[in-house]
Amino acid sequence: MYKVNIILFDQFELLDAFGPAEILGKLTDDFELHYCSLEGGLIESAQNSVIKTEKFSLHPDYQNIILIPGGAGTRKLVEDKAFIDFIESSAKPSDYILSVCTGAALLGKTSLLDHKKATSNKRSFDWVTSQNEKVEWIKKARWVKDGHIYTSSGISAGMDMTLGFIKDVLGESLARETANRIEYLWNEDPRLDPFSDLY
Amino acid sequence: MYKVNIILFDQFELLDAFGPAEILGKLTDDFELHYCSLEGGLIESAQNSVIKTEKFSLHPDYQNIILIPGGAGTRKLVEDKAFIDFIESSAKPSDYILSVCTGAALLGKTSLLDHKKATSNKRSFDWVTSQNEKVEWIKKARWVKDGHIYTSSGISAGMDMTLGFIKDVLGESLARETANRIEYLWNEDPRLDPFSDLY
Repeated sequence: MYKVNIILFDQFELLDAFGPAEILGKLTDDFELHYCSLEGGLIESAQNSVIKTEKFSLHPDYQNIILIPGGAGTRKLVEDKAFIDFIESSAKPSDYILSVCTGAALLGKTSLLDHKKATSNKRSFDWVTSQNEKVEWIKKARWVKDGHIYTSSGISAGMDMTLGFIKDVLGESLARETANRIEYLWNEDPRLDPFSDLY
Repeated sequence: MYKVNIILFDQFELLDAFGPAEILGKLTDDFELHYCSLEGGLIESAQNSVIKTEKFSLHPDYQNIILIPGGAGTRKLVEDKAFIDFIESSAKPSDYILSVCTGAALLGKTSLLDHKKATSNKRSFDWVTSQNEKVEWIKKARWVKDGHIYTSSGISAGMDMTLGFIKDVLGESLARETANRIEYLWNEDPRLDPFSDLY
């Protein structure tokens, strides 16, 4: 069983968190979802929804996954040392690290992405990549896997990455079946990225 | 300005509500999002997320949109007269009615879909259509528009429908720009539905 720790913060982007949550949440035999934040309590997303969160903790008996969404809130948080320390201390012992969109900026502010391949939102690509020049940023990618770290492009790309992650850890047929259950036309090639030329 | 009333209930499907919310929420000049429920208060989705809601109300100065998600919770709610009355009295005066997935079962239990074209989730299609035989149910469709009522297929299809709705009311270029902003590969043909043959 995997414990999925979805890290929420004020002004996170709704679909960055809930697209992957929808997909992982369909597989209740494999994934247990937890919505977490630094302090616990209510968190407001960029689209005005208010979500109840628990204080982050790792589960000693499970494999732990940390999912870091992006959103307007990341702009301030990259300068917030306490929050970046929280991301680093939460992600470092996790078995898998997944970021969506500008969540890669938060992860990039830790040392965990140093000398690793990663991607992010295309509209905010220059801003994200300026957070850490030691990362091997890849512009044209729907998502990038480097070892146990997955980073995706903007917002909806997190859903494609999550299905790719399921394919890697639990097999292709389960990934495909899950996409079918949510009637999602999965963009399953991580190299296909029509948005990288737009901005 | 449109007031978007997203109706939540226990065990609603996460992406049914938050996929459209992500998209409409990008257009802050046009749409104001409200997460509502029959009584207000905290509502728990099918994927364990807990959302704060307000009590439903129409805005007298805005055009009102009602968005009805589906999810496991609909199975009980189709038999709950007070809840169906709430859906009917909320939807009837609304300028636009949008349902996603098995949300069409809730809407179908009112008289608002009688003699209208509609679609729903493909895996639960037989159950949904059995709720009201006066509806002209269309199996092979990503989404269906009949007048001011939009109904979509399962879960992720709600995002395609929402972009189609934006195209209809605000124009194609804004719909396409919004899809690009969230890096979403929009399946823009409402007739293309590869999932209708799966179940």
